[in-house]
Amino acid sequence: MDFSLSPIAQDYCDRVRRFMDEEIRPVEHAYHRELQQRDDKWVVLPIIRELKAKARAAGLWNMFLPDAELGAGLSVTDYAPVAELTGQSAIAPEIFNCNAPDTGNMEVLYHYGSDTQKAEWLTPLLAGEIRSAFCMTEPDVASSDATNMAATALIEGDEVVLNGRKWWSTGIGHPDCRVLIFMGLTDPGAHRHAQHSMVLVPKDAPGVRVTRMLQTMGMYDEPYGHGEVEFNNVRLPVSNIIAGPGRGFEIAQGRLGPGRIHHCMRLIGLAELALQLMCERGTARQAFGKPLVNLGGNRERIADARMMIEQARLLVLKAAWLIDQRGVMAAMSEISQIKVICPNVAQTVVDMAMQIHGGAGLSEDTPLAMAWTAARALRLADGPDEVHRGLVAKFELMKYRG
Amino acid sequence: MDFSLSPIAQDYCDRVRRFMDEEIRPVEHAYHRELQQRDDKWVVLPIIRELKAKARAAGLWNMFLPDAELGAGLSVTDYAPVAELTGQSAIAPEIFNCNAPDTGNMEVLYHYGSDTQKAEWLTPLLAGEIRSAFCMTEPDVASSDATNMAATALIEGDEVVLNGRKWWSTGIGHPDCRVLIFMGLTDPGAHRHAQHSMVLVPKDAPGVRVTRMLQTMGMYDEPYGHGEVEFNNVRLPVSNIIAGPGRGFEIAQGRLGPGRIHHCMRLIGLAELALQLMCERGTARQAFGKPLVNLGGNRERIADARMMIEQARLLVLKAAWLIDQRGVMAAMSEISQIKVICPNVAQTVVDMAMQIHGGAGLSEDTPLAMAWTAARALRLADGPDEVHRGLVAKFELMKYRG
Amino acid sequence: MDFSLSPIAQDYCDRVRRFMDEEIRPVEHAYHRELQQRDDKWVVLPIIRELKAKARAAGLWNMFLPDAELGAGLSVTDYAPVAELTGQSAIAPEIFNCNAPDTGNMEVLYHYGSDTQKAEWLTPLLAGEIRSAFCMTEPDVASSDATNMAATALIEGDEVVLNGRKWWSTGIGHPDCRVLIFMGLTDPGAHRHAQHSMVLVPKDAPGVRVTRMLQTMGMYDEPYGHGEVEFNNVRLPVSNIIAGPGRGFEIAQGRLGPGRIHHCMRLIGLAELALQLMCERGTARQAFGKPLVNLGGNRERIADARMMIEQARLLVLKAAWLIDQRGVMAAMSEISQIKVICPNVAQTVVDMAMQIHGGAGLSEDTPLAMAWTAARALRLADGPDEVHRGLVAKFELMKYRG
Amino acid sequence: MDFSLSPIAQDYCDRVRRFMDEEIRPVEHAYHRELQQRDDKWVVLPIIRELKAKARAAGLWNMFLPDAELGAGLSVTDYAPVAELTGQSAIAPEIFNCNAPDTGNMEVLYHYGSDTQKAEWLTPLLAGEIRSAFCMTEPDVASSDATNMAATALIEGDEVVLNGRKWWSTGIGHPDCRVLIFMGLTDPGAHRHAQHSMVLVPKDAPGVRVTRMLQTMGMYDEPYGHGEVEFNNVRLPVSNIIAGPGRGFEIAQGRLGPGRIHHCMRLIGLAELALQLMCERGTARQAFGKPLVNLGGNRERIADARMMIEQARLLVLKAAWLIDQRGVMAAMSEISQIKVICPNVAQTVVDMAMQIHGGAGLSEDTPLAMAWTAARALRLADGPDEVHRGLVAKFELMKYRG
Repeated sequence: MDFSLSPIAQDYCDRVRRFMDEEIRPVEHAYHRELQQRDDKWVVLPIIRELKAKARAAGLWNMFLPDAELGAGLSVTDYAPVAELTGQSAIAPEIFNCNAPDTGNMEVLYHYGSDTQKAEWLTPLLAGEIRSAFCMTEPDVASSDATNMAATALIEGDEVVLNGRKWWSTGIGHPDCRVLIFMGLTDPGAHRHAQHSMVLVPKDAPGVRVTRMLQTMGMYDEPYGHGEVEFNNVRLPVSNIIAGPGRGFEIAQGRLGPGRIHHCMRLIGLAELALQLMCERGTARQAFGKPLVNLGGNRERIADARMMIEQARLLVLKAAWLIDQRGVMAAMSEISQIKVICPNVAQTVVDMAMQIHGGAGLSEDTPLAMAWTAARALRLADGPDEVHRGLVAKFELMKYRG
Repeated sequence: MDFSLSPIAQDYCDRVRRFMDEEIRPVEHAYHRELQQRDDKWVVLPIIRELKAKARAAGLWNMFLPDAELGAGLSVTDYAPVAELTGQSAIAPEIFNCNAPDTGNMEVLYHYGSDTQKAEWLTPLLAGEIRSAFCMTEPDVASSDATNMAATALIEGDEVVLNGRKWWSTGIGHPDCRVLIFMGLTDPGAHRHAQHSMVLVPKDAPGVRVTRMLQTMGMYDEPYGHGEVEFNNVRLPVSNIIAGPGRGFEIAQGRLGPGRIHHCMRLIGLAELALQLMCERGTARQAFGKPLVNLGGNRERIADARMMIEQARLLVLKAAWLIDQRGVMAAMSEISQIKVICPNVAQTVVDMAMQIHGGAGLSEDTPLAMAWTAARALRLADGPDEVHRGLVAKFELMKYRG
Repeated sequence: MDFSLSPIAQDYCDRVRRFMDEEIRPVEHAYHRELQQRDDKWVVLPIIRELKAKARAAGLWNMFLPDAELGAGLSVTDYAPVAELTGQSAIAPEIFNCNAPDTGNMEVLYHYGSDTQKAEWLTPLLAGEIRSAFCMTEPDVASSDATNMAATALIEGDEVVLNGRKWWSTGIGHPDCRVLIFMGLTDPGAHRHAQHSMVLVPKDAPGVRVTRMLQTMGMYDEPYGHGEVEFNNVRLPVSNIIAGPGRGFEIAQGRLGPGRIHHCMRLIGLAELALQLMCERGTARQAFGKPLVNLGGNRERIADARMMIEQARLLVLKAAWLIDQRGVMAAMSEISQIKVICPNVAQTVVDMAMQIHGGAGLSEDTPLAMAWTAARALRLADGPDEVHRGLVAKFELMKYRG
Repeated sequence: MDFSLSPIAQDYCDRVRRFMDEEIRPVEHAYHRELQQRDDKWVVLPIIRELKAKARAAGLWNMFLPDAELGAGLSVTDYAPVAELTGQSAIAPEIFNCNAPDTGNMEVLYHYGSDTQKAEWLTPLLAGEIRSAFCMTEPDVASSDATNMAATALIEGDEVVLNGRKWWSTGIGHPDCRVLIFMGLTDPGAHRHAQHSMVLVPKDAPGVRVTRMLQTMGMYDEPYGHGEVEFNNVRLPVSNIIAGPGRGFEIAQGRLGPGRIHHCMRLIGLAELALQLMCERGTARQAFGKPLVNLGGNRERIADARMMIEQARLLVLKAAWLIDQRGVMAAMSEISQIKVICPNVAQTVVDMAMQIHGGAGLSEDTPLAMAWTAARALRLADGPDEVHRGLVAKFELMKYRG
């Protein structure tokens, strides 16, 4: 049993922390204000491109990818504390080229892509030159049950033909978004886990139409956004299918493991930030003759926040370690567990922090309101809490089968 | 003990429900879409003016005001279930001229205003011709402790001179907003509850400047909005003070009682709407071969929602009844209790409803996302949960004093 | 809407409160100590018989029975606040002859018993001369699903023959217990709600054997207790069936309505007692230089306790009022709601009170440890929380059926 | 980062698990029944002595003690998973000579005892020949604040004179209990942390009187028990003071670190047992045509239990690792955190398991009722939740001090 960071993880954490302190935090508030004041917010402001170049030059780039040549060569466990740090800023993940859904899409291409697919899409993605989206969830069915999926990816000769409606395609609003990974039903007669295919779709392919950008709690999250997308007889060569027809489900499973570690660690980072703001505000501001932390149950809330965060972080790290040691399949229960726990912990800690900030906590004057919405949304993204609780129970009860 | 609605409450409920079903619900979604698509959202769309006229003609107007001549003559208890109904729509309160903060401001003028003040401001407010704001909370101090208030309303000869910064002045963005009620420190040497004054301030008085509109979770809530306002040597005749110098605190106390009943009952209405949407979606949509309500703990959540709502409603009604029977001062603990309970109940039920809606629950396709933000914000507006819990405890412990 | 007590309820409350203050509280601690020190605790100590006589003489007797001649003529609503008071003492219910399960059993006999049955059992029960038990729950099946019931009450000619095992037959250990109401399956072919019968069984009937008294959290709750009972070919005349064969389910339903009101209001009383002890201890004892109430979140907990109690009480009262106004069937959802809420509220408030008492809260020096166990057990007695939540959801969803 | 057990921890876990499966579990139920049926329960039944001998022979003895010669040489981290296993049985800790408070007392003697003290008391304690108690908590003050301590240990020449009343002296009822460690005030003028002394007191010293055994939720927990003890001018040589006058506080701090790890890991074991029983019962028993696990929110509860346990265990292990790596002082926040978390997790999981067992969960037919009471009591023992939350907050806020 060893709870210390490995030297390489420690090194990356130190450097990322320094980069964030020196380069990102000082400009972040101004960035958001500038974006907010633009009429067209679907843009990449120059500061982002500058910081991306700096991060790349500093070797803080593609740290999510375990490959030592293409990425930083960090294990999932070693990348986890790095992801935690990047979660404290809304723009840091993009700057380090470690932003969802691109990370997951790059991993898919890395593990399952053909050489041609890699050359066309993985290379520019790793270079941060283009961005991508993932089109899985559908508006007309409960997508938490994958067998509900109605969109189709039918093979007709040399072509695969895509039809259907997707939504919550995150990042599709970004001006650099060039490629979508689409998941659809190819063979309803096959085994339950071999019916779907994943297909690479150039965003400008005929038949692809973003019908609207969706609000999350009234916000568009520009310049990334979440789109509703129509696929209307989109015809592509079968070579655009990733790893061949029928392997969509398998790829999706593998994709989600490390991706959830990243999401969860970023949420831990967000929760840490909220706790920090809570302590700072609570000691700086007075009411009824005392600093706020000394009023009512505020200290107990600080303690609860600390306890929730510590526990959640350890479980994410253990899940990461299991993935590294035994593979994603051996960590399925833990992955579902953290998927439930982390957004809830982040939401709860942010909620407490908002209360101690009063009206400022609701406003744009602190990062709390955005953090709150982000954490809340992640209780649904990648499957609602309830579905993951169901999976955890299923794994638990499997121990008691004859 | 009698839990039935009085005949007059029943009659108003029936008429309001019908008006909402026939006039408001059919246009509501289109209203929001139209507003959303405008560049300038700080406007009153024609449909609102039309519906206000219809509501007034139908006698569904100023129902919050117990005065039988100027309002509908409903007691606080009788108005409560009406407020619950109007809480199910974001635009209904304005249509019935029962919208915060105007209701509270009208009550203040009704109870404490001079004849001149009434003629100038109460009459057009009751007619729905103008709107108002309430300027109490300040950005630089913990406003939950009224003694922190830094803004001043100093008497100089015949004039009262206002200085200071206020924020979260709700409704100040509305194009019809004409008058503000400002609260400031007049006499720091007076008894703790006699130091402040309330002053009527024409919105266009020299020295008044709305420095920005505040976002709540990224939204401006147009066309009402919440403003940050600078008062820079605003000079007004002393006759603009309501009820005379030093009575601000007393008026504020009285103002908040019925106002909280209204807020709380609207939140009950919101929670009922969320529960309804939850049941409808949960029975209509399938996953894993079953309607969603039959999955996991969804039925238990429906039961929990029902139980929370029933209990909260009864306590609001009891608080209303106490105000009617014994006055606001006798109901202080109950008023603080419901101020804690109702936003939390609404937030919790809306949260459950969002989960069962999946991504749709976060989007503009249901009223849930707005409801969620509204309920969350009301855990801070009119004093954070923690302050009200402190008051409830204080009242409880007073029973045990020698 | 009227939240005041009726004059008759007020009068009974005043008299019961006085009787408890003057007669019961002063002797209660000594009673428990005396009982505790006896080897045989399955006895009625003389003080109980004395107090019963005094209570009867004072007209504080059978107050649960709405019949004005046999009982006090109180409606369910009017009796509710009386039951709340009696819930603050472990011995008060017996002293007022208002103790479960006798109250429910008397109501069954009152509403469904034949004249002979009444003469034989109801009269001495009303006189407090004998006591009774109710034999429904079974050890070998999940009794929350009544259709699981395995015990039989088969008709053979003029006789009904009982077989099966029951447990949690409360009160069966009492030395005055003379009669059991047994529920068993008579006709498996009948409609789901017409298969069972209720049968009056003299405790000393051949074939009846109490195989053991059950511990609840290690305690026997002498002299009442909960028994496991074997019915082995118990043969009784068919005239011992209450209201005729097949009516068991119907009687059970009616029995549970007012019974749950009583249980719930007693739990409210218990919660009030715990809150009182919490406030008293919290103001009397010091740590870290302050009274305990001023430490950490203690005041928030006091507020939470007050809010929970207020809400729960109102819902019980509303359920009682619904039973009075529209009958048990119209109040089924509310009855299940309070059955979930009240034991949980009592358990939670007692838990808080225990914490503030430190070790004393766990010991026999306060009534808290017993209250804790009682509240916990009532989350299972009369159906577990989960089953009642299921019923509440069922009633809720019925509103949305085509 | 490494989440695997060390080889030595794995080896001890395997052997302890086997010993428990083969020797303890088969006799445990009979042991409790036999004890229960005795009039005098303050005895050591022969089976306990037999099993102690077997455990000692198997080298499963004093595993808590890191000393390789006197104990098993396990680090705190390595012993933790062993303690988890022993927590699944109420008698296992004694059988392995790893029972509180003896473990803590042995550690005190090991680290701070003089050679004479060790020879007299540590040797027979390590041999399991005698047992001990710890006398710190007092009935008349809030003992969570150590400065409240009223008992005295005054030096008079060569003697130390003890006076005062202690309670919750666990284990003092055991027939083999021979020695008490008493903590009292020696020098009120000294620095806050140097005022108290710890004194070794033979149980039969003149002036020591166990005035009563205390009930915990109505139970005496024979043959260990919790005593109230009077120290009336107990005169002992100053050589009975451990480590010299004024070092009581320092010793107490060190004593509590590993002791809390043990307690917490045993609670994790208890929670695991409850979860196991919950799954077994939930799959074995049917209601409404389904196994109980498939009803209502039961699967979500199973998932919640699994998530709580995983997180709590990891935090205990991390705290243990911190103690091993950096000492108790560096782990103070984590120790307080687990002291809050583990009893609550155990109580919550046991609570869920009880619900799924229905009445059986309350009775002596499952270990749940005892587990419930044990977990509940541990929310107060060694300091109430609230005090530890306060400490966690204090450590957190220290990060923000100038």
